[in-house]
Amino acid sequence: MPADLVQLVTSIAQRARAASLVLATTPSARKDAALLRLAELIPASAETLLAANQKDLAEARANQLPSHQLDRLTLTHARLDHLAESVRQVAALTDPVGTVLEEWTRPNGILIRKRRVPIGVIGIIYEARPNVTIDCAILCLKSGNAAILRGGKEIFHTNTAFAALITQALAETGLPAEAVQLIPTTDRAALNTLLKLDTLVHCIIPRGGESLIRFVAQNSTIPVIKHYTGVCFVYADQDADPAIAEAILINAKTQRPGVCNAAEQLLIHAGAAPTLLPRIAASLLAKDVQLRVDPAAAAILADASPAIAHTAATEADYTAEFLDLIMAVRIVPDLETAIATINRDSSGHTEAIITQNEASARRFQDAVDSAVVTWNASTRFNDGFEFGFGAEIGISTDRLHARGPMGLNELCTYKYVIDGSGQVRA
Amino acid sequence: MPADLVQLVTSIAQRARAASLVLATTPSARKDAALLRLAELIPASAETLLAANQKDLAEARANQLPSHQLDRLTLTHARLDHLAESVRQVAALTDPVGTVLEEWTRPNGILIRKRRVPIGVIGIIYEARPNVTIDCAILCLKSGNAAILRGGKEIFHTNTAFAALITQALAETGLPAEAVQLIPTTDRAALNTLLKLDTLVHCIIPRGGESLIRFVAQNSTIPVIKHYTGVCFVYADQDADPAIAEAILINAKTQRPGVCNAAEQLLIHAGAAPTLLPRIAASLLAKDVQLRVDPAAAAILADASPAIAHTAATEADYTAEFLDLIMAVRIVPDLETAIATINRDSSGHTEAIITQNEASARRFQDAVDSAVVTWNASTRFNDGFEFGFGAEIGISTDRLHARGPMGLNELCTYKYVIDGSGQVRA
Repeated sequence: MPADLVQLVTSIAQRARAASLVLATTPSARKDAALLRLAELIPASAETLLAANQKDLAEARANQLPSHQLDRLTLTHARLDHLAESVRQVAALTDPVGTVLEEWTRPNGILIRKRRVPIGVIGIIYEARPNVTIDCAILCLKSGNAAILRGGKEIFHTNTAFAALITQALAETGLPAEAVQLIPTTDRAALNTLLKLDTLVHCIIPRGGESLIRFVAQNSTIPVIKHYTGVCFVYADQDADPAIAEAILINAKTQRPGVCNAAEQLLIHAGAAPTLLPRIAASLLAKDVQLRVDPAAAAILADASPAIAHTAATEADYTAEFLDLIMAVRIVPDLETAIATINRDSSGHTEAIITQNEASARRFQDAVDSAVVTWNASTRFNDGFEFGFGAEIGISTDRLHARGPMGLNELCTYKYVIDGSGQVRA
Repeated sequence: MPADLVQLVTSIAQRARAASLVLATTPSARKDAALLRLAELIPASAETLLAANQKDLAEARANQLPSHQLDRLTLTHARLDHLAESVRQVAALTDPVGTVLEEWTRPNGILIRKRRVPIGVIGIIYEARPNVTIDCAILCLKSGNAAILRGGKEIFHTNTAFAALITQALAETGLPAEAVQLIPTTDRAALNTLLKLDTLVHCIIPRGGESLIRFVAQNSTIPVIKHYTGVCFVYADQDADPAIAEAILINAKTQRPGVCNAAEQLLIHAGAAPTLLPRIAASLLAKDVQLRVDPAAAAILADASPAIAHTAATEADYTAEFLDLIMAVRIVPDLETAIATINRDSSGHTEAIITQNEASARRFQDAVDSAVVTWNASTRFNDGFEFGFGAEIGISTDRLHARGPMGLNELCTYKYVIDGSGQVRA
């Protein structure tokens, strides 16, 4: 590993740690002032930002990136305005820091308070979306954390321009300029160095594809909060209301098929399948969803009048995150089989049961081991905004610290503050 | 890596995962019945347990283990009775599982409940204390988690005998026998295999020396909750009450010097030092504490009448976890220097301020970045029992998920359960 890279990244982390100690006791109003200044600077610096973005786009075109990736990379005046508005929205949220989560007095008279505090220094590792630099910076800042950002090489010039604006907003409002730092290289060696600085950096959040997340998880000695795949199931129970089942499946599968809380897998109770499956399948087909089905479902669809197009599922389809207009369908004999199937084949992200039977719903919600389990509601509700968090840094597929939507509260830890009057331990 | 070891450990983890799904919805009464049966079995099986322990002790003597380690390994009837009593105590605690932590309704009518649930499968990696097998097994069981235990080779026969009892208690009370499993080998390759099974095991808790913890943290792709060192500071402020300062320092330093929440470092405000330091130092000396001091403190102690014995501190002393009757002492010019010194040199475990000035205390509690920050109370209170948790699996020095004492609540995560009536996302 090049010594200068190690020194560079270590120095960034040391300055982030120092900044985090200042931020941890910075009043809300001062953090908000920095955010509001940033919101002003973004449209005011549009030309600089768009010029930097054009450099990235020129390189991306030269590297023949596919058009949907080019679109993702592209900044426009409208996107910048949207970004500035999201900064103002985060500034308007309640500061999570300082809330007393619990408070109790022990028989010896000591008063213990469990108080929400920032985590400290958070490393965000991400790929090619230009909004992530701003999104992550503002959520970390609002929650009193210092951020070290390491974005993808495809968006390096844009990220650098955004980082300069953030530094300017911090400096102009009297906050430590090192509260948000971009690693000024996309060299893998720099990332590897960062992932080992476990005395300076307290949490790593990788945002991006599975291979990036896996690389980070395998190489980090710092705790990582992962945002993996969503192989989300909908189970239409024997007692499902057909209209509810249809509406939820259309929404969960087709509203935005490329996201992690979209449904990928459908299980239908054998007792309901002969009537329910043809109706649902026809609706999904009308939305261009390709159905990959097990033999029992195939028989029902073939018998339907008119017969409904489908293909035979492979084993791999039953655990697939398609992120596309494709849905795997299986018939299950009962609720318990649905639960066992989900606990074996899902990614533990979001699952839904459609039923009018409360006992079945409760059993499903209790026994399904996933971050979010809905009853008669779309899987798409596993989302920080839909939860009312007002912001979201991601949807955790881990179980420790944060599970499901991660908002400002989940960017905090806690500490215990004890008041005594000379108590000692007996 | 030997293929049969990989298969063995993977099979253990798969069975643990299956057991964890059963445990997650097992009513409290049934978990408690298993615990109470175990409490009966321990004294009833004393001869078997002591015989297994004798095998370990014989090997330990043959390997010339030092006497304090032999003492740690040794089981007695009294220790077994104490262990059985601790099992009954855990059975009597409130079940953490199922508590609704938060509950709210969104404008679209969906009801969101955040509910406490077990983490799932927890791997406990520990060294040579025979009580850890029982302690960890019962805390995991009570909190609905399946446990995979991997103890040290010095205590292998004893652990095996305990594990057999736990299996018996589970089986006799109708719980999955695989809810608690001991890895039947201390081969490092088996541990390495376990640490990579991140789809089956959800959390690793290493309990033991720093090198064990570091090995686990560096080799695990499963989230690890670490219990590292405690370089705990006491800061005697300008406005310290001398009697309180003296009592807390004696307690924090000498009551049990070998534990992580014992004080190692003393900072004294320069304004208070000329009167406070000689008094505290004399008291500590009377308890056989060796003082390693900075030049300013040395001058004060040399001037005291009678002069108080001390040695000059080295730089290394200022960040040392002595775990012994040794204390490093420094004079600081003010509160802010005390805070900055602590945030640089402490391990973030537990720090105390002694002062009669509330503003100073609040500033210290706000700005010191440690898991537990006390005001006029001993550092020794960072402890699950002292907090009233009724049990403790350790004291986390991490910031994510659990910080400070880890009791039953901290052995749980949460999931979100959503009730709807057909809502879809707009």
